[in-house]
Amino acid sequence: MPININNLFNSINKNSKMGDFQDLDHIDGLSISVTSANLYSKQRDDLVLFYFRNGVNHASVYTQSKLISENIKWNLKINKKKIKALLINTRNANAFTGKEGFKGLKILADSLSQELTQKQKSDEEKPIKVESDEILFGCTGTIGEIFPTEKIKKSIPDLIKKIKYTQNKYLWIKASMGILTTDLKPKLAMEECYIGNKLVKIYGIAKGSGMIYPNMATTLGYIFTDATISSSILKQLLKQNIHKTFNAISCDGDTSTNDMVSIFATGEVENSNLKSVKDKKLTEFNLSLHNVLLNLAKRIAADGEGASKFISIKVKNCRTDEDARKISFSIANSPLVKTAIAGEDPNWGRIIMAIGKANVNIIPNKISIKFGNITVIENGKLSNSYNESEAANYMKEEKIELLVNLNLGKKEFTSYTMDLTKKYIEINSDYRT
Amino acid sequence: MPININNLFNSINKNSKMGDFQDLDHIDGLSISVTSANLYSKQRDDLVLFYFRNGVNHASVYTQSKLISENIKWNLKINKKKIKALLINTRNANAFTGKEGFKGLKILADSLSQELTQKQKSDEEKPIKVESDEILFGCTGTIGEIFPTEKIKKSIPDLIKKIKYTQNKYLWIKASMGILTTDLKPKLAMEECYIGNKLVKIYGIAKGSGMIYPNMATTLGYIFTDATISSSILKQLLKQNIHKTFNAISCDGDTSTNDMVSIFATGEVENSNLKSVKDKKLTEFNLSLHNVLLNLAKRIAADGEGASKFISIKVKNCRTDEDARKISFSIANSPLVKTAIAGEDPNWGRIIMAIGKANVNIIPNKISIKFGNITVIENGKLSNSYNESEAANYMKEEKIELLVNLNLGKKEFTSYTMDLTKKYIEINSDYRT
Repeated sequence: MPININNLFNSINKNSKMGDFQDLDHIDGLSISVTSANLYSKQRDDLVLFYFRNGVNHASVYTQSKLISENIKWNLKINKKKIKALLINTRNANAFTGKEGFKGLKILADSLSQELTQKQKSDEEKPIKVESDEILFGCTGTIGEIFPTEKIKKSIPDLIKKIKYTQNKYLWIKASMGILTTDLKPKLAMEECYIGNKLVKIYGIAKGSGMIYPNMATTLGYIFTDATISSSILKQLLKQNIHKTFNAISCDGDTSTNDMVSIFATGEVENSNLKSVKDKKLTEFNLSLHNVLLNLAKRIAADGEGASKFISIKVKNCRTDEDARKISFSIANSPLVKTAIAGEDPNWGRIIMAIGKANVNIIPNKISIKFGNITVIENGKLSNSYNESEAANYMKEEKIELLVNLNLGKKEFTSYTMDLTKKYIEINSDYRT
Repeated sequence: MPININNLFNSINKNSKMGDFQDLDHIDGLSISVTSANLYSKQRDDLVLFYFRNGVNHASVYTQSKLISENIKWNLKINKKKIKALLINTRNANAFTGKEGFKGLKILADSLSQELTQKQKSDEEKPIKVESDEILFGCTGTIGEIFPTEKIKKSIPDLIKKIKYTQNKYLWIKASMGILTTDLKPKLAMEECYIGNKLVKIYGIAKGSGMIYPNMATTLGYIFTDATISSSILKQLLKQNIHKTFNAISCDGDTSTNDMVSIFATGEVENSNLKSVKDKKLTEFNLSLHNVLLNLAKRIAADGEGASKFISIKVKNCRTDEDARKISFSIANSPLVKTAIAGEDPNWGRIIMAIGKANVNIIPNKISIKFGNITVIENGKLSNSYNESEAANYMKEEKIELLVNLNLGKKEFTSYTMDLTKKYIEINSDYRT
């Protein structure tokens, strides 16, 4: 059975201003439109447009794959300071589609820029032209299939018609569902915080749930704020927060050609001027952005394909960050650990195996391992207090916390993943049918 | 359904002197004994002794895991030129069992050396003492459980009683089955070849079938020959042949704490003196050893947990060996590729993804990909001749061959793996129950 994500995460924002995404409402300077271009055989939304009518500062991080999708190539060529729109389609990744795939995006950008310019003329007092190179694209779905340029182009008038200048939580949920592929649940998160004396919002949506293994950015994540922050500061904020959030999750160890996390700042809230990313006025925003990214990342892991359990793997007291990260992911990516957890088996021997293969220098008799509050290994030995039936009982939980303590230093890293179930095989052996 | 391994591999020895293991018979200077110490709850053999009554030259390669099992620690301490016995137990890996686990091996070695010395006295004209440090151990099974020293020790008299001085194929099959864990099939291979004008034999047995990912050596493999070859030459022969055989397979990307491949030369055939590993008289032996190791390695991959298909992934025309290896294993270890193959889906987009994430510099429009003889990608584009239903038909085969051609250089690497099925999950979620 799929995990009840809300039960899992209602608590994670305890220290921040806002909790669940039930409170999502409106962000000034942003408009959303959702429709179906019939890209799937079944009826569902598959096109989502974010329209920034006054332009927005923006920053993105992309996949580190050596084979990147055409939309990422497109986005990397955009050098306008402000962008006006983000169009996301699901079902087709526009990856390994060659020049045709790239041309398709040009056709869509041209069409969208015309239609949006038209809309400016009818809606705004001082209409501004929307240029093709002020549009970003997010694509997700099957790699290598011909990009459905015509189908999407035909839906653009409908998309324009459906643009909503104000949002409520239902529209956010609709948008977040319009970008999903095999995900079962929408992924949204929000925070509110102060920059100086101005309250600003940070909203985010994301999708998983296959090919999830971090390499700079993982999967699709889009963050929106009404704060006034320059693109270069946004870029630094995003980079410094991605490492322990989106880059800390793994569903199956596979890295997509299409990974993309972006942040957009509409600047509708006139907060005080920010000199640099180190400006103390940004401290709270930085933390809140981290929370939004982490919340989304955890939701992606929890909704990983076939997941029945959400697993967090904290590796602490390591010599280096990289050591902690290597061991944490060695455990998170081990099919043997993940199947044991699916079987609710406290098979700690497989944790030992995964620590051993991580290629990190360790001192075996310093290692401690805990499942939740249960000490399994202490100083490299099975703990005297360890009781297998107690541990087996703990493994029945929906949220499993593994702690590995190397007792060698002060660095730590936590990764997030899910168990490996028959459902994963089922989803992935007939994904395209 | 499990793969019919014999159908798959009857052909691989085409160019060598012997084919199937149906022809295994006797190797002089070697004795085998197989029994059950009741280590499993069900009745099966779980203890296998190889006894070399005149001592043998030997060489081994071991796991590169940073957490190695107690038997590997024991073996690494052995510095006798000749050894007299190899005792293998299944069910318990004797890993992360600490000093107690190591002490258990000392107790077994002491007991075995006494009993074997006794047997020498009753059987041989010139009895020689068997020392504790002339015994090697192979252990496989669950990590972290208390090593069943007493149970095994109690079985030693029975093991001694059952020692057979001559072998036939049934005894070899029995021995190879006595070292299995979740494997479904015995894994044996053989070759015969000449060193100078002397015909020598090379026999091998191995086990899989979980925690299989190469790192120096993978899983258990034992090779026996009646040739006269020094330990130092054996070591070099083993090292140079392991890279493209045992180190070319992956079942699940997990590396065991217990991996071990050893070769033993009884020296009963008095072939001509060999000066070094480069001696031309060794050319044929070297090739035959490679065949035995490759044959066993392929059998391990084909019998990987839950396997319904055997997959070989050849990556050619790369700039470096390491590039070819990285891409080949990136594909072999991708759960998305492996589930697609389980579903008989020619989802080549996932191959593209796996190439992209391997962190190798490539030129996308030079890549070609084939499934068997079917060209899928040519010069970075979907081939004009590609026909999805033809490819889908090919995916129904039991033996799937993927070919990736980077067209950038001359180096190549082939890895071997199997598909990822629901059966894998089933086996591994309740392995210990």
